[in-house]
Amino acid sequence: MRSSVSAALATIVAGALAQNNMSYYDYTVEGNPQLDSRTLATIPLGFPSCTDSPLADTLVCNKSASAWDRAAALISMFTMEELVNNTVNTAPGVPRLGLPPYQVWNEALHGLSHFYQPDEGDFIWVTAFPQPITSMASMNRSLIHQIGSIISTQGRAANNAGLYGLDVYSPNINGFRAPVWGRGQETPGEDAYFLTSLYAYEYITAMQGGVGPAVPKLVTVAKHFAGYDIETWRNHSRLGNDVNITEQDLASYYTPQFRTAILQAKAKGLMCSYNAVNGEASCGSSFFLQTLLRETWGFGDGFVSGDCGAVYGVFNPHHNAATRVGGSAAALLAGTDIDCGTEFAYYLEEAFTQGNVSRNDIEKALTRLYSGLVQQGYFDGNGSMYRDLTWDDVVKTDSWNISYEAAVEGIVLLKNDGTLPLHNNSSVALIGPYANATEQMLGNYFTTPPYIISPLAAFEASGRTINYALGTGISSNNETFFDEALEAARKSDVIIFAGGIDNTVESEALDRENITWPGNQLDLVDRLSKLGKPVVVLQMGGGQVDSTALKGNKNVNSLIWGGYPGQSGGQALYDLISGKRAPAGRLVTTQYPASYADDFYQLDMDLRPSGDNPGQTYMWYTGEPVYAFGHGLFYTTFEENLAMNASTGASINITDFFIQPHSGYEFVEQKPLLSFQAKVSNTGDVASDYSAMLFASTTSGPTPRPIKWLVGITREAEIAPGGACTVKFDIPVGALARAAENGDLIVYPGDYSLALNNERSVVMNFTLTGDAITIAHWPSKIETGGA
Amino acid sequence: MRSSVSAALATIVAGALAQNNMSYYDYTVEGNPQLDSRTLATIPLGFPSCTDSPLADTLVCNKSASAWDRAAALISMFTMEELVNNTVNTAPGVPRLGLPPYQVWNEALHGLSHFYQPDEGDFIWVTAFPQPITSMASMNRSLIHQIGSIISTQGRAANNAGLYGLDVYSPNINGFRAPVWGRGQETPGEDAYFLTSLYAYEYITAMQGGVGPAVPKLVTVAKHFAGYDIETWRNHSRLGNDVNITEQDLASYYTPQFRTAILQAKAKGLMCSYNAVNGEASCGSSFFLQTLLRETWGFGDGFVSGDCGAVYGVFNPHHNAATRVGGSAAALLAGTDIDCGTEFAYYLEEAFTQGNVSRNDIEKALTRLYSGLVQQGYFDGNGSMYRDLTWDDVVKTDSWNISYEAAVEGIVLLKNDGTLPLHNNSSVALIGPYANATEQMLGNYFTTPPYIISPLAAFEASGRTINYALGTGISSNNETFFDEALEAARKSDVIIFAGGIDNTVESEALDRENITWPGNQLDLVDRLSKLGKPVVVLQMGGGQVDSTALKGNKNVNSLIWGGYPGQSGGQALYDLISGKRAPAGRLVTTQYPASYADDFYQLDMDLRPSGDNPGQTYMWYTGEPVYAFGHGLFYTTFEENLAMNASTGASINITDFFIQPHSGYEFVEQKPLLSFQAKVSNTGDVASDYSAMLFASTTSGPTPRPIKWLVGITREAEIAPGGACTVKFDIPVGALARAAENGDLIVYPGDYSLALNNERSVVMNFTLTGDAITIAHWPSKIETGGA
Repeated sequence: MRSSVSAALATIVAGALAQNNMSYYDYTVEGNPQLDSRTLATIPLGFPSCTDSPLADTLVCNKSASAWDRAAALISMFTMEELVNNTVNTAPGVPRLGLPPYQVWNEALHGLSHFYQPDEGDFIWVTAFPQPITSMASMNRSLIHQIGSIISTQGRAANNAGLYGLDVYSPNINGFRAPVWGRGQETPGEDAYFLTSLYAYEYITAMQGGVGPAVPKLVTVAKHFAGYDIETWRNHSRLGNDVNITEQDLASYYTPQFRTAILQAKAKGLMCSYNAVNGEASCGSSFFLQTLLRETWGFGDGFVSGDCGAVYGVFNPHHNAATRVGGSAAALLAGTDIDCGTEFAYYLEEAFTQGNVSRNDIEKALTRLYSGLVQQGYFDGNGSMYRDLTWDDVVKTDSWNISYEAAVEGIVLLKNDGTLPLHNNSSVALIGPYANATEQMLGNYFTTPPYIISPLAAFEASGRTINYALGTGISSNNETFFDEALEAARKSDVIIFAGGIDNTVESEALDRENITWPGNQLDLVDRLSKLGKPVVVLQMGGGQVDSTALKGNKNVNSLIWGGYPGQSGGQALYDLISGKRAPAGRLVTTQYPASYADDFYQLDMDLRPSGDNPGQTYMWYTGEPVYAFGHGLFYTTFEENLAMNASTGASINITDFFIQPHSGYEFVEQKPLLSFQAKVSNTGDVASDYSAMLFASTTSGPTPRPIKWLVGITREAEIAPGGACTVKFDIPVGALARAAENGDLIVYPGDYSLALNNERSVVMNFTLTGDAITIAHWPSKIETGGA
Repeated sequence: MRSSVSAALATIVAGALAQNNMSYYDYTVEGNPQLDSRTLATIPLGFPSCTDSPLADTLVCNKSASAWDRAAALISMFTMEELVNNTVNTAPGVPRLGLPPYQVWNEALHGLSHFYQPDEGDFIWVTAFPQPITSMASMNRSLIHQIGSIISTQGRAANNAGLYGLDVYSPNINGFRAPVWGRGQETPGEDAYFLTSLYAYEYITAMQGGVGPAVPKLVTVAKHFAGYDIETWRNHSRLGNDVNITEQDLASYYTPQFRTAILQAKAKGLMCSYNAVNGEASCGSSFFLQTLLRETWGFGDGFVSGDCGAVYGVFNPHHNAATRVGGSAAALLAGTDIDCGTEFAYYLEEAFTQGNVSRNDIEKALTRLYSGLVQQGYFDGNGSMYRDLTWDDVVKTDSWNISYEAAVEGIVLLKNDGTLPLHNNSSVALIGPYANATEQMLGNYFTTPPYIISPLAAFEASGRTINYALGTGISSNNETFFDEALEAARKSDVIIFAGGIDNTVESEALDRENITWPGNQLDLVDRLSKLGKPVVVLQMGGGQVDSTALKGNKNVNSLIWGGYPGQSGGQALYDLISGKRAPAGRLVTTQYPASYADDFYQLDMDLRPSGDNPGQTYMWYTGEPVYAFGHGLFYTTFEENLAMNASTGASINITDFFIQPHSGYEFVEQKPLLSFQAKVSNTGDVASDYSAMLFASTTSGPTPRPIKWLVGITREAEIAPGGACTVKFDIPVGALARAAENGDLIVYPGDYSLALNNERSVVMNFTLTGDAITIAHWPSKIETGGA
């Protein structure tokens, strides 16, 4: 760790931020009448006893029995009322059996959040890491793993203290397809097939404590399955959206990250989404929840939770059932085990008496939840794995530094004419709605962090002369405070405008209608840029805004995308701007021109261009991005060459490859087909981390073909000026697969190129010979079978 | 144990029976060109080493990893050639990895059989228990469990000696619907819903060593799934039969025993059958092998084997695929993991290169097989559970006595005018094709037993005067030996004719075209019955023959059904005839009149009567049976009365019942809804076991309703003359369910009767109130779901 948050600085800001205590009790979900106080109640958590409760002498407490059998024995003791009451997220438990209440709904997007219950003694804070959109921009997969490990240690310790559950409604792995999406900030970006899968793998295996461990540290509930990436765009509601998606797009974009989460990372939970796909509500879809999830991906004993209120949605607004009773029955039978909501509690008993569901149907659902809890040692008392983690263990984690590090690594330098890093001792005008940001930098889903270091606090702590002015809000119609800002600018050497968007513009239940900069902010920047002084703009927020005007304005010298950098965001920004650290992040989303969000229907899920649809994501977009997916500048220059021991023009027989063993890899698709190696030399004069993306392109297989697609990322630790290193990308054969029209994932023979970054600074060609190899069949259609 | 096989007698017969050594090498399956020498080869079996093989330092040998992960790690090391070569029953293993060959095909129908490999030293015999059709007629479920436990001890010991595998292609749990079926002998009879399920539960949990144990003793492969109960009737071939079955009949008759086997008894293997159902080959049916088996019944990591040659059948004769390659692909993708045959070995690699299957598809199939082997300790060396069982443990089992006991208990007295038991010292003419039967008494699927006690040997050992004559064969056109038989009869006090049918008439690949007695035998009995002496007829064989002529012939004094009574069959018959033991078996099949097999199409699978179909099984048959399902006489008389503490006319709210806990029962359907208790007094003068069947009938629920259906069986140990006992039937609520047209299993409110035996000697009425309760949904249709 090269830098750390100064304890002194933390003390400076901690006091001022006490008021940031989240009000997690009044969390609301737009348009969901079913999320009432019962759903959202904070309930006392605790552990069942296997020594002095009615469970003590039952199979439930027999550690030598299987987790499933122990859970099934527990559930068999429930009356029907107890049964249905516990099929919802706020589960009351069964007092007469000594089974305590359990809250299934726990959030852990980038740190624990609701319903984490801070204590009056310990457990007074939770680390707020950057939002995933920022952390992933670091290009650092081990960082994602570190973050997951820390969050799960915090969660498990909090659980031991009765303040948090044992499963988490995380990660959010929908592809950030539509730039207007209010929740894209929660995701690792727009590359669903490779990058989101990679993120899911690292996060899930870190949170669960390994690949399918016997004792899951926390159970992750991967969400939102499937096809969910619009909230409220043009008055559509996420609750009622019914999107049309081809099998090809489902297999290649909307589900492969879930496939990785379940099949490879072995997530033990999954959340079905609000929306419908091709006419069928996700939470009522046996195709999604049985055929894909259990049959094809081997979900086994895992449990499915509906998104909060989504079970109600099967009835209304999706009308996949004629009654609320029918809707609950349909959801349960399709494979939704737990209702985050209250429909199951209110209507399943009637569904039972009407014969729509059986008692065993309900028991199976609950047994899936409880078999996980059994595995986690819920019934096994102190001494079982993770049960001795305490607040001391939370404090011992390196979470403050890692949160800072993730921010430093994830922030992206979009434009720079040499103005950055700042000269020593230059005075700074710090202007804009993010200049003194605190909670804004956290995005959504957080609770009380130990501190939040605002940009202003960090800049002021530097000893420089800082002239602060708000200037304008995120969205505003007046210029009342412009003059103050111009005045601050005039008396400073350098002008830094910290703006962009925040959760008043993009958030859960709130999409953007356009992807422009708020006009008031651009107006102010324009005014500031005419002062003849260096101008640095910080573009904050998860979604990209069209920065064409800034990109083309010579008087805007530097542009930085900061996303939502978390509790140490201000410090990270300052350290990058001042040159204490050097940037090496890369955009994980395309920055589209503003017209993109106007010109075609954002609920058009087809990735390939057709009609008004210009093609979506960098793989298919036929227009010119403002800043491309993968864009990111350094303070230094790197020269990149194909490594001596790598060769271009190789020919590889893929049939031969697939017929060979793949020892050490659970699935053959994980096994590297070839390596790409490049020697990277720092030819500038600033020490800097190096990062890169590796893209594949091909002339093989059916058309249309993507322009290119991601097959590797890397981040190398600081390379000194004059220094060099060799970066190596092992390309798993699965990364070269494409989805056929029927959804099969296929590696096609033919010619391929691997190119380093958008600049294609190093290119390696190779040819695959042999037969087209199907890596995975899409289950909807078996070409050779059936009569 | 009240009786045992005398060691002296065993010695008498053992020598004479040495020639009975089975030729298990030349087993053939009719019409299956794919079962070549490669399939059927006897291969050297052994264990892999985890100390000095290439596997030693891999995950495969890591006992702390999960069985699935260990197996997957193993399979990942295979080349494609090694992979496909091991997807068949005669699996060569992988020599370069130190993985020995494995034979998946092991039979254990009523004792180990092929490919058990007797040794030159120990392991020279295998206990041949009665065929299941006889053992189940005992009405003794714990006996079934004892037999399973002994067989699995023998199997596991043989495996340790390298003579047998770790899984068995047993039990055969198709319903014995069609009396012409050649393999009905292998089943526990015609009552699929209750009795076959009960048999499956006892056999599987005994063979596997518990309900889903961590270390399965043997893995049972329940067969044949589904709708398989005709071999060759009227030149149809089992390989090509395509039967039409309604969802209602599938749910209530053709699959519920498989549901019990998988869901409740947790069989880890299943065999798909030769035939097709509703146009789709069983081994190519994702509805059967995924939707039902895995999704609905939770088959988990279990494996599916095709019946031997059935994978080839997907292509030919079923033509569910256009090529052999396509047929293999379709079978694999539908869920057939192992091909008992060679198609997979010959064609899966081509299916892979053609893109029909992926490497992962093949790996998943093999991992399912090997994860079971890992659980069983295949890789764990000496000292792991069951690995220390030896020949000494085989000898220590009480197998000889239990085999004898099963025969005694399973033999059924159909008719008796007091002639039986025989008077002491009466001389006996022992006549007929079973009089000196040895292997005939074993039915099919056996190997070298320790001895076979023929009827003649047992009678001769009794000290009585015995006059033996063959008289006639099973099927014959001449009367050459009639005179010898009549001569023997004339010089004896009592005439015993031992005939019926054997495996020359009913067997695998051989159905009967009629269900009459062979005419030559009836002719001889007719002649014998005119001699003015007591005549006792033994009707042997698994399928019933129409005994109307004997039933109505006053000169035939007694009639006994013996089935296939196994290695001690002759002794059991003698001890019953002589009165050393008293009969208490009951028919588990209906004895239909001969016209039954002529009057309607035996491949008509509809159970309910319509058109020519008179209704099938005792539940629906509208005609008059010769001897009814459940028929069985005693030597004594029993008076049966409703027990004092039981009451008739009770009213039970089933909604209330289902909403209550069912602690101690894994599934609510297993929980008793009510008990039926009767006091049984032996009012005769012979000590006798007592057995009974309890039938339900109802006026509730939709029509047509079955005439009655079985909900309980019992067998009480010997009750002395003047003695009494109370028999209690706990009626699991699932036993009262009926299948709706859509296949849902439902308990309907309304009026019910429970009646003891066909005589309805004790009747208890009760009323169910509340709502109709669905116990289990049939998955093909979800009424409330989907758009």
